[in-house]
Amino acid sequence: MTEGTLVLAIQGGADNWSPQRWVERFNAVAGDRKVVLLPDPAADPDAVHYAAVWKPPQGVLAAFRNLRVIFNLGAGVDALLADPTLPDVPIVRVAVDDLTGRMTEYVVLHTLMHHRQQRRLRDDQARRLWRPPAQWAASAVTVGVMGLGQLGRDAAAVLRRIGFAVVGWSYSARAIDGVECFSGGDGLAPFLAKTHILVCLLPLTPDTRHILDRRLFERLARNSPLGGPVLINAGRGGLQVEADILSCLDDGTLLAATLDVFATEPLPADSPLWSHPRVTITPHNAADTDPDAISAYVAEQIARFEAGGPLRNVVDRARGY
Amino acid sequence: MTEGTLVLAIQGGADNWSPQRWVERFNAVAGDRKVVLLPDPAADPDAVHYAAVWKPPQGVLAAFRNLRVIFNLGAGVDALLADPTLPDVPIVRVAVDDLTGRMTEYVVLHTLMHHRQQRRLRDDQARRLWRPPAQWAASAVTVGVMGLGQLGRDAAAVLRRIGFAVVGWSYSARAIDGVECFSGGDGLAPFLAKTHILVCLLPLTPDTRHILDRRLFERLARNSPLGGPVLINAGRGGLQVEADILSCLDDGTLLAATLDVFATEPLPADSPLWSHPRVTITPHNAADTDPDAISAYVAEQIARFEAGGPLRNVVDRARGY
Repeated sequence: MTEGTLVLAIQGGADNWSPQRWVERFNAVAGDRKVVLLPDPAADPDAVHYAAVWKPPQGVLAAFRNLRVIFNLGAGVDALLADPTLPDVPIVRVAVDDLTGRMTEYVVLHTLMHHRQQRRLRDDQARRLWRPPAQWAASAVTVGVMGLGQLGRDAAAVLRRIGFAVVGWSYSARAIDGVECFSGGDGLAPFLAKTHILVCLLPLTPDTRHILDRRLFERLARNSPLGGPVLINAGRGGLQVEADILSCLDDGTLLAATLDVFATEPLPADSPLWSHPRVTITPHNAADTDPDAISAYVAEQIARFEAGGPLRNVVDRARGY
Repeated sequence: MTEGTLVLAIQGGADNWSPQRWVERFNAVAGDRKVVLLPDPAADPDAVHYAAVWKPPQGVLAAFRNLRVIFNLGAGVDALLADPTLPDVPIVRVAVDDLTGRMTEYVVLHTLMHHRQQRRLRDDQARRLWRPPAQWAASAVTVGVMGLGQLGRDAAAVLRRIGFAVVGWSYSARAIDGVECFSGGDGLAPFLAKTHILVCLLPLTPDTRHILDRRLFERLARNSPLGGPVLINAGRGGLQVEADILSCLDDGTLLAATLDVFATEPLPADSPLWSHPRVTITPHNAADTDPDAISAYVAEQIARFEAGGPLRNVVDRARGY
């Protein structure tokens, strides 16, 4: 990075982002390029060639007439695409191994917690009860992964290595070694009919909004060794209908749920999800983005772009991810 | 299996073993061979060629003059070798992928629970607190695996795939791709000095008894992103000094512990381990042995042996495993 201004537009607060940390990392990789954290009244809008953003206020990017590329600093671009004034320049998604690895950690941890009956064992410990439960092998459990991009494919590979049967579903057809893959509207029912533990890593688009509803949960396999279907959602809160999750837990359609994302974040203190005995809540931290890894990724993309090379991981605005 | 008697000597009760389940499985693979569950006064001791055992009462195997092979139905042979009247015939350890896979599930689950701060997140959920903690990547954590037999090697491979740095220690030197291996008395201190999460899968022998003591815990790396050293013991209870674990947790030498095994099992109801806020207890169920997989393994070994082939996974009585 040698000229022009890179602006950072980062919404701090609820998401546990420290804008200053990002500014430091970007300065470290920016060379002679100026790095500006918005809002900054002293910045010259016409000198801005690149923007690195996370949930920027709507309209803020429209001021930059010479903008060339927008880098989104998290995995999902749904918040960004909701801005009707977004300039018509390429949007680059984050696709760094660090983020992928963190999501795989989360998926593997929570899949194993359900599979290995960790909630029951914890309750037994609290009651000083030594009651080894019958335990099935991973091969008896089918994990269904919705969303087979970089994150879903990596999680599926590690789940397979641990011994789970894995099936996958995505909008467009994918092929993954050792994973039976389904796609599109027609593929959804047969995918769900095989799935004991559903892991959702879908992007949020108009097509996927509220896809995790009662109708979907009712199609999950009922023959699980766990005793019932389990939902793990680490995608976006907008994918799920929270009232349906609660009623399905209460009538046995779902056995348990692990949720990292919610319709409203932070999850309101009065949400009944917090205290449901079969719900595990994490505060949207399944896959934090690491400023070190991502600032290096952005710098590398800009260097390639300015040398005449292609940008990678460009968002398809029509698909929404 | 076509002739002679295979006896099963299985201690039920505390270990959650159902002898009848084992008899059924062995009958299914035994062909014309007779399967007898001890004690059985009608059995002819001289017709017994093979014994498949789990913690048999001392002296019971000495009655079989024509015994050829003893198959131990669990991973550890320490209880069996403690019998001074044990006949001098080969003892075969269980080494089936099913058991290995189950242990890897356990090690990966509990390593990830510590790494991903699951205890803190659970407490936050109970208090309806949305407080995403800073989360380091797996690459910032070094897991030290003690015991590099089939179980330790498989767990190390999956931990590496997830992104952890992994070091290993064993009595005799081993080489594992991508894992820095240490061995013997001289290798222990440098191994511990690198280890943030210690996973113990050692066999119990006179050399390893009480190896997990204060002196060892004090040598673990202090620079862990977790805030302190963590112990996971899924080997044998005799490896650990429980009073040292408790005092080391209380003075900060250890941050937390996950224990599947105990000096006395079931863990007595008055043990302070049950209620320690930084101890996770599981009831010696890290790696259950599956009658299907193990009866097939025993039948295959007998068939090979009777065809003049070698037995596999024979215990070295001098080493004790």
